[in-house]
Amino acid sequence: MMNLRNAPLHSLTATQIVAAVSAGETTCEAVARACLERIAEREPKVQAWEYLNPDYVIKQAQTLDSGSKRGPLIGVPYGVKDIIDTADMPTEYGTPIHKDHRPQRDAACVALSRKAGAVLMGKAVTSEFANVHPGKTRNPHDAARTPGGSSSGSGAAVGAEMVPLALGTQTTGSTTRPASFCGVVGYRPTWGDLRLNGVMEASGTLDTLGILARSVDDVALYRDVLLGIEPQPVVDVDTRLRIGFCRTHNWSKVEPTTQKLLEDAAARLTRAGATVEDVTLPHDFEALEDAHRWISGFEMARNLTWEIENHWNEISEQFRNGRLTDGLACTYEQYVAMRHHMHHCRKLLLPILDRYDVLLAAAAPGEAPVGWHPVPHPWVYMIWTTMHVPSITLPLFKGPNGLPVGAQLLTRHYDDRRLFAMARWVDRQLMNA
Amino acid sequence: MMNLRNAPLHSLTATQIVAAVSAGETTCEAVARACLERIAEREPKVQAWEYLNPDYVIKQAQTLDSGSKRGPLIGVPYGVKDIIDTADMPTEYGTPIHKDHRPQRDAACVALSRKAGAVLMGKAVTSEFANVHPGKTRNPHDAARTPGGSSSGSGAAVGAEMVPLALGTQTTGSTTRPASFCGVVGYRPTWGDLRLNGVMEASGTLDTLGILARSVDDVALYRDVLLGIEPQPVVDVDTRLRIGFCRTHNWSKVEPTTQKLLEDAAARLTRAGATVEDVTLPHDFEALEDAHRWISGFEMARNLTWEIENHWNEISEQFRNGRLTDGLACTYEQYVAMRHHMHHCRKLLLPILDRYDVLLAAAAPGEAPVGWHPVPHPWVYMIWTTMHVPSITLPLFKGPNGLPVGAQLLTRHYDDRRLFAMARWVDRQLMNA
Repeated sequence: MMNLRNAPLHSLTATQIVAAVSAGETTCEAVARACLERIAEREPKVQAWEYLNPDYVIKQAQTLDSGSKRGPLIGVPYGVKDIIDTADMPTEYGTPIHKDHRPQRDAACVALSRKAGAVLMGKAVTSEFANVHPGKTRNPHDAARTPGGSSSGSGAAVGAEMVPLALGTQTTGSTTRPASFCGVVGYRPTWGDLRLNGVMEASGTLDTLGILARSVDDVALYRDVLLGIEPQPVVDVDTRLRIGFCRTHNWSKVEPTTQKLLEDAAARLTRAGATVEDVTLPHDFEALEDAHRWISGFEMARNLTWEIENHWNEISEQFRNGRLTDGLACTYEQYVAMRHHMHHCRKLLLPILDRYDVLLAAAAPGEAPVGWHPVPHPWVYMIWTTMHVPSITLPLFKGPNGLPVGAQLLTRHYDDRRLFAMARWVDRQLMNA
Repeated sequence: MMNLRNAPLHSLTATQIVAAVSAGETTCEAVARACLERIAEREPKVQAWEYLNPDYVIKQAQTLDSGSKRGPLIGVPYGVKDIIDTADMPTEYGTPIHKDHRPQRDAACVALSRKAGAVLMGKAVTSEFANVHPGKTRNPHDAARTPGGSSSGSGAAVGAEMVPLALGTQTTGSTTRPASFCGVVGYRPTWGDLRLNGVMEASGTLDTLGILARSVDDVALYRDVLLGIEPQPVVDVDTRLRIGFCRTHNWSKVEPTTQKLLEDAAARLTRAGATVEDVTLPHDFEALEDAHRWISGFEMARNLTWEIENHWNEISEQFRNGRLTDGLACTYEQYVAMRHHMHHCRKLLLPILDRYDVLLAAAAPGEAPVGWHPVPHPWVYMIWTTMHVPSITLPLFKGPNGLPVGAQLLTRHYDDRRLFAMARWVDRQLMNA
C-alpha cells in the first residue's frame, strides 16, 4: 500500500504508520527506534523535549508488538505538551515551581491516546504555564527563531519529524502559532468538544486542546481517538466550496509578503472551482482583543492563586507584569462585560458562518520572528479563539526566507469533520497548483 | 456587635466569625477548637470527613492568630469536597483507586480560600467520582437517611454545624440536593464564573463549583472570595419582586407535602408584597433530562478513561453499569444533538428570565429518603443545571418527619449578586411569617 523503502520511518504520518504496522510491514519498535534516532540527531539544536526516556519508549513499543491489541493509533509515537498530566512521566507546566511533579494519573487525552495504541514519546516543552515566558525550544527550520508557543515543543517535534503527532492546547494562539511557524498542521477543535480532565486550566472560557500533525488525515484520525469514537476517514468534498476570505481589521499588520501569499491562494482556489468572497467582520469584532485580554487575565490570575501566593518570585517577570497583573486588577464587572461582548460577537458571526462553507484567514503575520519570544502578535489569533469555532492551520506557504507560513480555515461549531474535508481539498489545490 | 455568650462558636456563620475575630472577641484558634469539638461529638454518627487532622487545623489557626494578615474569611473553618485538590491533604475522588493521592498544589478555589484567611478543616466525603456510588456520610438530622450527594460530606458538615462553609461541586444536583436534605443554603454559580483549576472534571459542559453554608450572606461573602474580588455586602431588595413559580413538567413527581409547602410559600410571598405568577416551561424542556443524561455520560466516560482502562474492576457497579456504560455507547452525533438542544432551551429560557426577577422551584421532591443512595431523583435538578443559570437553595421548610426540605431560587446568568439579595428577602419573609 505504500513504498516504505522510499520514506524513512520517522517521516511517515500517523495514518501511514498505522497502515504499515497493521499490514506487518514494520513494527511499533522499528517506528519508535526510527523516531528516537531522529530525535538524537535533531534534539541538540531543536530542544523540543522536557522529558524523554528512550528505554521506556522502546518498552512501550515492544509491549504493543507482543500484544494482540490493535488500536487505531497502533505504534504511533506522539508528544504531549507539559501542561497535560501523564501517569508515567513528570508534568512540570513549564515552571521550576513544579519541578519533578509526577501526577498519579493520565489526563483524559493521554489515556485515550494510550488506549488507541499510541506510543508516548515524552513531554514536549511548553512556555511557562502555557503563557508568555519561553521554554528552551528552537524553530526546527532555523534555530535562531522561535518555534512559536505556547505549544512550542509540540510544534517543533512534529515539524522536525521527531514524531508525527503531538498534543498541544490553545488559549490564544498556542496551537495555530507553532503550527504556522514550524510548518505543520495545527487544529483547534470546537470549544468544549475534547475533554480537558487532567489538563492545567489556564482560562476555561477559552482553553481547548490542540493537535499538531503533518497531515489533515492524521488530525481527523487523532480527533476521533480523542473523542473516544470509532475513527472515520475524511471524505472528499462534493460541492463547489464557498470560501469567505476574512482579512479582519488587522490586515495592515500582516506582512505584505503574507498578504500576497493569501491573496494568491484565494485566486488559485477560485480557479480551482471555489467561489471566494471577501468577508468584512462587523466593527464590534475589534473589541475582541480587549475581551480576550481581560477574560484570560482574570481567569489565569485566579487559576494560579496557589503559585501567586506561594511562589510569586519564581514566576517570570513577563507573566507577573503582564497577564497576571492585568488579571488581578480586572474587576468582575469588566470581566463579565467582556464575556457578554464575546457572546454578542459569536451571535454576529453565525450568519457569516452560514453564508460560507469555510472562512480563510491568516494564521500568522509572516515567518517565525528571530528570537525566543514564543507568543508574538496575539492579535492574529484572539478573534478566532474567542469565537469557539474549529480552526485548522495548513502549512501552505514559504515566506521570503524560505520558512513556513500557514493559513487558517474556520467553520461552524461542531462541523470539524467537514472542516477536515475542506482543508484537504484546499491543501490539494494549492499544493498541486 | 453580637452576643457570643448566647451562641456556641461552632454554630456561628462565617460572617459572624469574621466579625468576632476582627473585633478581638475571639480567636481563630478558639473557633477552630470549637468546631473540632463539635466534630468529635457528631462525626461518629455523621461521618462527613474523608480526611481530618485536628493538630494541623489548630496549627493553621495559630499561624493566623499570630500573623498580621486579616483576610475576608479570617479564621473561618471550611470543608473541601474530596474531588478538589489540596496541597496539604490527600485528595482521593471518593475511590480506592486514588487512595492516599497527594496533589502538589491547591485547586484555585482552595488557594483563594487560604489567601482569604480561612482554615482548611479537612476533606469532605464525596460519592465516587462525584457520581452515584455513596460514601460513608449520613444525614446529620437522621442517620438512617442519605445526606444527598455527591457533595455529601460538604452538606452534612455544614448541616451538623461542624463548619460554617464547605466547597462542593455540581454536575446534576450535587450541591442543591445535599443542601435541601441537610437543611443548609446551597449555591450553584452562573456556569463558568468560578474557576475549576484543580477540580476533577466530571462533565465540563455542566460542572460548576458549589457553596454550602448556613446563611445567604455567607454564600455571598464566599463567592466574592472565590471570584478573587473585594467582598461586597448583600444589599436589600428595593423593588416589589416579580416571582415566577415554576413547577416544571415533573410536578406530579414532587411529594404532595412538598407541593403544599411550595404553594403556601408562594402565597405568603404574595402577601409580603411580591407578585407571584405561574410559569410553564415550553415542552422542549422535557427533553433536557435526556440531554443531561447523554452529555454527562459521554463526557464522564472520556474524562475517566485512565480509570476505566486501568481500574475497571475497582469502579462501582452502579457507575460502571450506569453513566459509564451510557457514555461509552453514546455516539458523537447524539452527544452534539443534545448539546444543541441544551443551547436551544437556554435561548427559550431567556425571555422567561427577563419577565421575572427570580424563579421559584422545588429543590427536592421531599425530605431525604431513608437509605444511602446519594443521588435520588436527578430529574429535579437536571433542567436547571443544563440552563447554566445561578441557583440558590434555601432551607425553608420542614417535611412530615420534621426533616429539612429546601426550595430553589434561580435568575439570569451573571445576576448572582442580585440573586442573593432576593434570596435574603425571601428567606426573611418566610422565616418571619
